[in-house]
Amino acid sequence: MSKYTYLKEQVYEANMEITRESLAIVTFGNVSGIDRQAGVVGIKPSGVPYHRLKVDDIVILDLDNTVIEGVMRPSSDTATHIVLYRNFPTIGGVCHTHSTYAVAWAQAMREIPNMGTTHADHMVSAVPVTEVMSDEMIKGNYELETGHQILDLFRKQLLSPEEVEMVLVACHGPFTWGKDPAKAVYNAVVLEEMAKMAFLTLQIDPATPTIKQSLIDKHYFRKHGNNAYYGQDGC
Amino acid sequence: MSKYTYLKEQVYEANMEITRESLAIVTFGNVSGIDRQAGVVGIKPSGVPYHRLKVDDIVILDLDNTVIEGVMRPSSDTATHIVLYRNFPTIGGVCHTHSTYAVAWAQAMREIPNMGTTHADHMVSAVPVTEVMSDEMIKGNYELETGHQILDLFRKQLLSPEEVEMVLVACHGPFTWGKDPAKAVYNAVVLEEMAKMAFLTLQIDPATPTIKQSLIDKHYFRKHGNNAYYGQDGC
Amino acid sequence: MSKYTYLKEQVYEANMEITRESLAIVTFGNVSGIDRQAGVVGIKPSGVPYHRLKVDDIVILDLDNTVIEGVMRPSSDTATHIVLYRNFPTIGGVCHTHSTYAVAWAQAMREIPNMGTTHADHMVSAVPVTEVMSDEMIKGNYELETGHQILDLFRKQLLSPEEVEMVLVACHGPFTWGKDPAKAVYNAVVLEEMAKMAFLTLQIDPATPTIKQSLIDKHYFRKHGNNAYYGQDGC
Amino acid sequence: MSKYTYLKEQVYEANMEITRESLAIVTFGNVSGIDRQAGVVGIKPSGVPYHRLKVDDIVILDLDNTVIEGVMRPSSDTATHIVLYRNFPTIGGVCHTHSTYAVAWAQAMREIPNMGTTHADHMVSAVPVTEVMSDEMIKGNYELETGHQILDLFRKQLLSPEEVEMVLVACHGPFTWGKDPAKAVYNAVVLEEMAKMAFLTLQIDPATPTIKQSLIDKHYFRKHGNNAYYGQDGC
Repeated sequence: MSKYTYLKEQVYEANMEITRESLAIVTFGNVSGIDRQAGVVGIKPSGVPYHRLKVDDIVILDLDNTVIEGVMRPSSDTATHIVLYRNFPTIGGVCHTHSTYAVAWAQAMREIPNMGTTHADHMVSAVPVTEVMSDEMIKGNYELETGHQILDLFRKQLLSPEEVEMVLVACHGPFTWGKDPAKAVYNAVVLEEMAKMAFLTLQIDPATPTIKQSLIDKHYFRKHGNNAYYGQDGC
Repeated sequence: MSKYTYLKEQVYEANMEITRESLAIVTFGNVSGIDRQAGVVGIKPSGVPYHRLKVDDIVILDLDNTVIEGVMRPSSDTATHIVLYRNFPTIGGVCHTHSTYAVAWAQAMREIPNMGTTHADHMVSAVPVTEVMSDEMIKGNYELETGHQILDLFRKQLLSPEEVEMVLVACHGPFTWGKDPAKAVYNAVVLEEMAKMAFLTLQIDPATPTIKQSLIDKHYFRKHGNNAYYGQDGC
Repeated sequence: MSKYTYLKEQVYEANMEITRESLAIVTFGNVSGIDRQAGVVGIKPSGVPYHRLKVDDIVILDLDNTVIEGVMRPSSDTATHIVLYRNFPTIGGVCHTHSTYAVAWAQAMREIPNMGTTHADHMVSAVPVTEVMSDEMIKGNYELETGHQILDLFRKQLLSPEEVEMVLVACHGPFTWGKDPAKAVYNAVVLEEMAKMAFLTLQIDPATPTIKQSLIDKHYFRKHGNNAYYGQDGC
Repeated sequence: MSKYTYLKEQVYEANMEITRESLAIVTFGNVSGIDRQAGVVGIKPSGVPYHRLKVDDIVILDLDNTVIEGVMRPSSDTATHIVLYRNFPTIGGVCHTHSTYAVAWAQAMREIPNMGTTHADHMVSAVPVTEVMSDEMIKGNYELETGHQILDLFRKQLLSPEEVEMVLVACHGPFTWGKDPAKAVYNAVVLEEMAKMAFLTLQIDPATPTIKQSLIDKHYFRKHGNNAYYGQDGC
């Protein structure tokens, strides 16, 4: 029996949540988790339909992208996940989906504006969108460069990966993360709903403004930080 | 055994209806119920996912927002519910959701116009929308002030909470109520459908007028008041 | 045991199909069936939620709107159904829903244009929409007049109820019919899909023309009439 | 027992996937498969609802459209399928649906532009759309001519049926194909999602450009051809 079974189970469960929540069709999407102490990442194997996925199919790699355990090829997006783990030291899980409304915003290369409390409950800013990659980056180590695009964006916009746990990669789709794989998928669920709400809002009134700063702060800080009073302690 | 078990069961069932009817994802949304004679309110605990909610998790408070029974923190929106119970003396249940289409109208800060008999079956007016709260109210007792925004709106527009059992809070989402928690959730289901129908109608023709008064009255009064002939007696 | 049990079962099954096909929420919608030889109609009782409906709840009336069997009040739309049975002598079932996209077209008071073969498989014309009723008709025998609006429309547009088995009542929603209650509901299912397809088509290109007559005829007559070659004989 | 049972089972399973994936309502849609060595095609019988379909109902024909086995009439679209098998020698399955978003694009007579990696993962070009058929073709052997329209389009646009496994027939809907019936249905599932994503993208920004060629190539060739690294070997 593998000494990484606990990680494989956690990553397997989070991947199955993608299909239960209808965040991806066929084989699209992948979730990973990291054991920081052991320095290993578990991730979905590439191109496997969810209904055939098994716990033991989860591939274990080190942070140099070398497979340590598993007979299947890891997700083709693995390098993107690992760049995020190496540069966002507090995150424990990463999720990538092709959920419909989030992809539409990514294809339109637009950030999702913060127009309501559903959004403000989860983040202060818009959901940011990367720039389109240069031809050189695409033809180089594409999946690694996808990670670099995200890092560049966070650097330029002075965003913190603890406060903003989601991003749209232009022309592609969303990546989300969190303290563990389950939270990364939770953020993917919330992002898809925020993307749909923002879509409908702008169809009703294309001139809808972003909500006022005091309301953003109220909703964000009643769920996050030392003065939070939403939820139960220890949850 | 609690002497409020009957109330907890009623409130628990109404909360579970939110998730069965897909009116909210993850932990969003909350329903409460009141026992007017005992002067107590039962409400969903804050931030608990529906699939983990149990009857005994329902928190019991008095009308001064003091917890009487329950080990969990009550919904962060509790103060809003209690303001409504104190000022709308005939209502027995309150429901708050983040249902997608209703939220889109709330984010666009638009009332939902009455354009058809599905809407007129349930109310004569548009679904009203509050004004955006002032910074002072937001930074003060926010959830209490959310209730005050609703009361102000009903006062200014001369609306009766017996006739209009739903409202949109600007930039936030819907609150609905009714004679008991189940009716409050029923109104949330109907509101989401009305919100979607109105959305689609204005996409087909942005110049669609509201329906004529005689048709509104016909549909409203065949379901409400002394001359109603819809439904069964005692239902 | 009732001598109309066969009719009640047929009508019950057709009503349950409304909720299985998500054509109506809560208590909205109703289906009826007629036994032409016995001169009786069976219809859903008013305001009963589908999950509580039982075969014996189906109300039996004669063609003068008098209840013959059943302890519950019949659907408030019963008079509309009976007008259709009296004037469309070949139909055996009538269905009324508040299905979302069909209602949106009805609220926008627009007929659904015939822009593709899914529509043409079922009818040659647009899905017609009635005019808005006069105040006099609304304040008079409203449900009877709803039927008269439909008859007037079919007379003016020279439509045959055998060829056009669906209509939108302005500001209200769809009525469909067919040789029996099951076919009436089948037509309601198809109408909702046609309404959604037409909605999306005009969002993609508001100038989309109706399809050419030869293509309409080809698709309609491969499914209907003496030279039909779609489906199985006797089906 | 039939010597074509293996083919009937394969075709039956692929047809049932249409309804499981909600690609068609009622009796719409049909999938076929070919045994190139035996020179026979298996296809869904015409007008049979999916919940009543049985393995033995699948009709077996030769490539001259003559029924070899089966008591039911084959799909009315059989001639279109057979034209595709005769002219696209490497395909093993064909699928036709009336899936909602793909039909909307077909009714609007617009190709689906390639605006993101979900699309580029599956094909380099837009999803092409045929021209509207001439009256002569419609009044002639319509279903055969539908196949000819597809062949003409592929010839004119220099498309390869191995690279482009999907097409929209103007005013009608999608046809997809693949190495076997299951792959043909897989492509129908993916097409419907691409159609919805493209629809939403252009609603957000009607001026969204197609994605750059380097990104198309990257995504297409990481899944197809000799240098592919997506998925597992032998899958």
